Amino acid sequence: MTNPELISLLKDPELLIPAIVQDVNTREVLMLAYMNTQSLAMTLSSGRATYWSRSRNELWVKGATSGHFQQVHSISLDCDGDALLVTVTQTGVACHTGEVTCFHKPLPMSAL
Amino acid sequence: MTNPELISLLKDPELLIPAIVQDVNTREVLMLAYMNTQSLAMTLSSGRATYWSRSRNELWVKGATSGHFQQVHSISLDCDGDALLVTVTQTGVACHTGEVTCFHKPLPMSAL
Repeated sequence: MTNPELISLLKDPELLIPAIVQDVNTREVLMLAYMNTQSLAMTLSSGRATYWSRSRNELWVKGATSGHFQQVHSISLDCDGDALLVTVTQTGVACHTGEVTCFHKPLPMSAL
Repeated sequence: MTNPELISLLKDPELLIPAIVQDVNTREVLMLAYMNTQSLAMTLSSGRATYWSRSRNELWVKGATSGHFQQVHSISLDCDGDALLVTVTQTGVACHTGEVTCFHKPLPMSAL
Protein backbone atom coordinates (compact mmCIF):
# COMPACT_ATOMS: atom_id res chain seq x y z
CA MET A 1 0.00 0.00 0.00
CA THR A 2 1.48 3.33 -1.07
CA ASN A 3 0.99 6.55 0.82
CA PRO A 4 -1.64 7.82 -1.69
CA GLU A 5 -3.50 4.51 -1.45
CA LEU A 6 -3.49 4.75 2.32
CA ILE A 7 -4.70 8.32 2.23
CA SER A 8 -7.48 7.35 -0.16
CA LEU A 9 -8.92 5.11 2.57
CA LEU A 10 -9.34 7.99 4.99
CA LYS A 11 -12.62 9.84 5.04
CA ASP A 12 -10.89 13.20 5.28
CA PRO A 13 -7.06 13.07 5.11
CA GLU A 14 -6.88 16.71 6.22
CA LEU A 15 -8.47 15.95 9.58
CA LEU A 16 -6.90 14.42 12.65
CA ILE A 17 -8.02 10.81 13.07
CA PRO A 18 -8.86 9.51 16.55
CA ALA A 19 -6.79 6.43 17.35
CA ILE A 20 -7.96 4.02 20.03
CA VAL A 21 -4.99 2.31 21.65
CA GLN A 22 -5.50 -1.20 23.05
CA ASP A 23 -3.02 -3.46 24.84
CA VAL A 24 -2.66 -6.51 22.59
CA ASN A 25 -2.11 -8.84 25.56
CA THR A 26 -4.55 -7.68 28.25
CA ARG A 27 -6.99 -6.20 25.69
CA GLU A 28 -7.32 -3.19 27.99
CA VAL A 29 -8.11 0.09 26.25
CA LEU A 30 -5.19 2.33 27.20
CA MET A 31 -5.84 5.76 25.70
CA LEU A 32 -7.29 7.76 22.85
CA ALA A 33 -4.83 9.78 20.78
CA TYR A 34 -4.91 11.46 17.39
CA MET A 35 -3.00 10.83 14.19
CA ASN A 36 -2.54 12.78 11.00
CA THR A 37 -1.40 11.10 7.80
CA GLN A 38 2.26 11.85 8.63
CA SER A 39 2.13 10.22 12.07
CA LEU A 40 0.13 7.29 10.67
CA ALA A 41 2.76 6.76 7.96
CA MET A 42 5.56 6.95 10.57
CA THR A 43 3.76 4.45 12.78
CA LEU A 44 3.22 2.02 9.91
CA SER A 45 6.83 2.20 8.79
CA SER A 46 8.55 2.23 12.20
CA GLY A 47 6.20 0.03 14.21
CA ARG A 48 6.41 2.55 17.04
CA ALA A 49 3.21 4.44 17.88
CA THR A 50 3.47 8.05 16.77
CA TYR A 51 0.65 10.51 17.25
CA TRP A 52 -0.07 14.16 16.63
CA SER A 53 -0.06 16.15 19.86
CA ARG A 54 -2.96 18.60 19.75
CA SER A 55 -1.65 20.51 22.78
CA ARG A 56 1.91 20.88 21.51
CA ASN A 57 0.94 20.88 17.83
CA GLU A 58 3.74 18.54 16.86
CA LEU A 59 4.55 14.91 16.11
CA TRP A 60 4.61 12.84 19.27
CA VAL A 61 6.51 9.58 19.44
CA LYS A 62 4.79 8.07 22.46
CA GLY A 63 7.49 7.34 25.04
CA ALA A 64 10.12 9.65 23.57
CA THR A 65 10.38 11.53 26.86
CA SER A 66 8.90 9.00 29.35
CA GLY A 67 10.43 5.83 27.90
CA HIS A 68 6.91 4.37 27.78
CA PHE A 69 7.00 3.37 24.13
CA GLN A 70 4.26 1.46 22.34
CA GLN A 71 5.27 -1.28 19.91
CA VAL A 72 2.49 -1.60 17.36
CA HIS A 73 1.04 -4.99 16.42
CA SER A 74 -1.83 -3.94 14.19
CA ILE A 75 -3.72 -0.92 12.95
CA SER A 76 -7.28 -1.23 11.70
CA LEU A 77 -9.43 1.39 10.04
CA ASP A 78 -13.12 1.50 10.84
CA CYS A 79 -15.93 0.96 8.35
CA ASP A 80 -16.35 4.61 7.46
CA GLY A 81 -12.66 5.53 7.46
CA ASP A 82 -12.61 8.06 10.28
CA ALA A 83 -11.19 6.16 13.25
CA LEU A 84 -8.29 3.80 13.94
CA LEU A 85 -7.74 0.94 16.35
CA VAL A 86 -4.08 0.45 17.26
CA THR A 87 -3.03 -2.64 19.22
CA VAL A 88 0.26 -2.32 21.06
CA THR A 89 2.69 -3.80 23.51
CA GLN A 90 3.01 -1.08 26.12
CA THR A 91 6.34 -0.45 27.85
CA GLY A 92 5.60 0.84 31.35
CA VAL A 93 2.21 2.52 31.55
CA ALA A 94 0.15 4.48 29.05
CA CYS A 95 -1.08 7.29 31.26
CA HIS A 96 1.00 10.27 32.31
CA THR A 97 -0.55 9.97 35.81
CA GLY A 98 1.17 6.62 36.32
CA GLU A 99 -2.04 4.60 35.88
CA VAL A 100 -2.00 1.67 33.46
CA THR A 101 -4.79 3.21 31.39
CA CYS A 102 -5.99 6.78 30.90
CA PHE A 103 -9.56 5.54 31.49
CA HIS A 104 -9.43 5.25 35.26
CA LYS A 105 -12.35 7.50 36.27
CA PRO A 106 -15.59 5.44 36.30
CA LEU A 107 -18.79 7.46 36.18
CA PRO A 108 -21.74 6.35 38.32
CA MET A 109 -24.57 4.83 36.29
CA SER A 110 -28.16 5.96 37.07
CA ALA A 111 -26.64 9.16 38.33
CA LEU A 112 -28.84 11.70 36.65
CA MET B 1 -23.37 12.92 40.78
CA THR B 2 -25.61 15.68 39.46
CA ASN B 3 -25.70 16.83 35.87
CA PRO B 4 -23.63 19.98 36.67
CA GLU B 5 -21.08 17.87 38.54
CA LEU B 6 -20.83 15.51 35.57
CA ILE B 7 -20.45 18.37 33.15
CA SER B 8 -17.73 19.89 35.32
CA LEU B 9 -15.62 16.78 34.68
CA LEU B 10 -15.63 17.30 30.94
CA LYS B 11 -12.85 19.31 29.40
CA ASP B 12 -15.25 21.15 27.12
CA PRO B 13 -18.95 20.33 27.65
CA GLU B 14 -19.83 22.15 24.42
CA LEU B 15 -17.83 19.71 22.30
CA LEU B 16 -18.76 16.23 21.18
CA ILE B 17 -16.85 13.64 23.19
CA PRO B 18 -15.45 10.57 21.41
CA ALA B 19 -16.73 7.39 23.06
CA ILE B 20 -14.83 4.13 22.59
CA VAL B 21 -17.22 1.19 22.78
CA GLN B 22 -15.83 -2.13 24.05
CA ASP B 23 -17.59 -5.48 24.44
CA VAL B 24 -17.48 -6.22 28.18
CA ASN B 25 -17.25 -9.98 27.59
CA THR B 26 -14.91 -10.43 24.61
CA ARG B 27 -13.07 -7.12 25.30
CA GLU B 28 -13.19 -6.45 21.58
CA VAL B 29 -13.30 -2.77 20.60
CA LEU B 30 -16.55 -2.45 18.64
CA MET B 31 -16.79 1.13 17.41
CA LEU B 32 -16.06 4.78 18.05
CA ALA B 33 -19.06 7.05 18.44
CA TYR B 34 -19.65 10.54 19.83
CA MET B 35 -21.64 11.82 22.78
CA ASN B 36 -22.78 15.22 23.87
CA THR B 37 -23.80 15.92 27.46
CA GLN B 38 -27.45 15.11 26.65
CA SER B 39 -26.67 11.69 25.18
CA LEU B 40 -24.23 10.96 28.01
CA ALA B 41 -26.90 11.82 30.58
CA MET B 42 -29.44 9.61 28.76
CA THR B 43 -26.94 6.75 28.64
CA LEU B 44 -26.14 7.04 32.35
CA SER B 45 -29.79 7.14 33.37
CA SER B 46 -31.17 4.51 30.96
CA GLY B 47 -28.23 2.11 30.75
CA ARG B 48 -28.74 1.97 26.99
CA ALA B 49 -25.97 3.44 24.85
CA THR B 50 -27.11 6.70 23.28
CA TYR B 51 -24.86 8.76 21.03
CA TRP B 52 -25.00 11.92 19.00
CA SER B 53 -25.17 11.17 15.28
CA ARG B 54 -22.90 13.61 13.48
CA SER B 55 -24.34 12.68 10.07
CA ARG B 56 -27.99 13.01 11.07
CA ASN B 57 -27.35 15.68 13.70
CA GLU B 58 -29.65 14.04 16.23
CA LEU B 59 -29.70 11.79 19.27
CA TRP B 60 -29.04 8.19 18.31
CA VAL B 61 -30.17 5.34 20.53
CA LYS B 62 -27.91 2.63 19.17
CA GLY B 63 -30.14 -0.21 17.96
CA ALA B 64 -33.34 1.84 17.74
CA THR B 65 -33.72 0.92 14.07
CA SER B 66 -31.51 -2.21 13.79
CA GLY B 67 -32.43 -3.84 17.12
CA HIS B 68 -28.71 -4.01 17.87
CA PHE B 69 -28.89 -2.31 21.26
CA GLN B 70 -25.96 -1.87 23.62
CA GLN B 71 -26.56 -2.43 27.33
CA VAL B 72 -24.01 -0.34 29.19
CA HIS B 73 -21.93 -1.82 32.02
CA SER B 74 -19.56 1.04 32.74
CA ILE B 75 -18.48 4.43 31.47
CA SER B 76 -15.06 5.82 32.30
CA LEU B 77 -13.67 9.26 31.61
CA ASP B 78 -10.05 9.60 30.62
CA CYS B 79 -7.40 11.48 32.56
CA ASP B 80 -7.88 14.78 30.76
CA GLY B 81 -11.66 14.63 30.46
CA ASP B 82 -12.02 14.55 26.70
CA ALA B 83 -12.74 10.88 25.88
CA LEU B 84 -14.97 8.12 27.20
CA LEU B 85 -14.69 4.35 27.38
CA VAL B 86 -18.07 2.60 27.36
CA THR B 87 -18.25 -1.14 28.06
CA VAL B 88 -21.37 -2.85 26.76
CA THR B 89 -23.19 -6.06 26.14
CA GLN B 90 -23.87 -5.94 22.42
CA THR B 91 -27.09 -7.37 21.00
CA GLY B 92 -26.35 -8.64 17.48
CA VAL B 93 -23.41 -6.83 15.94
CA ALA B 94 -22.04 -3.32 16.32
CA CYS B 95 -21.28 -2.53 12.68
CA HIS B 96 -23.87 -1.56 10.08
CA THR B 97 -21.99 -3.77 7.58
CA GLY B 98 -22.88 -6.88 9.58
CA GLU B 99 -19.36 -7.32 10.97
CA VAL B 100 -18.98 -7.79 14.74
CA THR B 101 -16.77 -4.71 14.99
CA CYS B 102 -16.43 -1.58 12.87
CA PHE B 103 -12.64 -2.07 12.95
CA HIS B 104 -12.37 -4.83 10.37
CA LYS B 105 -9.94 -3.25 7.87
CA PRO B 106 -6.35 -4.04 8.95
CA LEU B 107 -3.66 -1.83 7.43
CA PRO B 108 -0.37 -3.43 6.36
CA MET B 109 2.54 -2.56 8.65
CA SER B 110 5.81 -1.48 7.00
CA ALA B 111 3.74 -0.35 4.07
CA LEU B 112 5.15 3.06 3.41
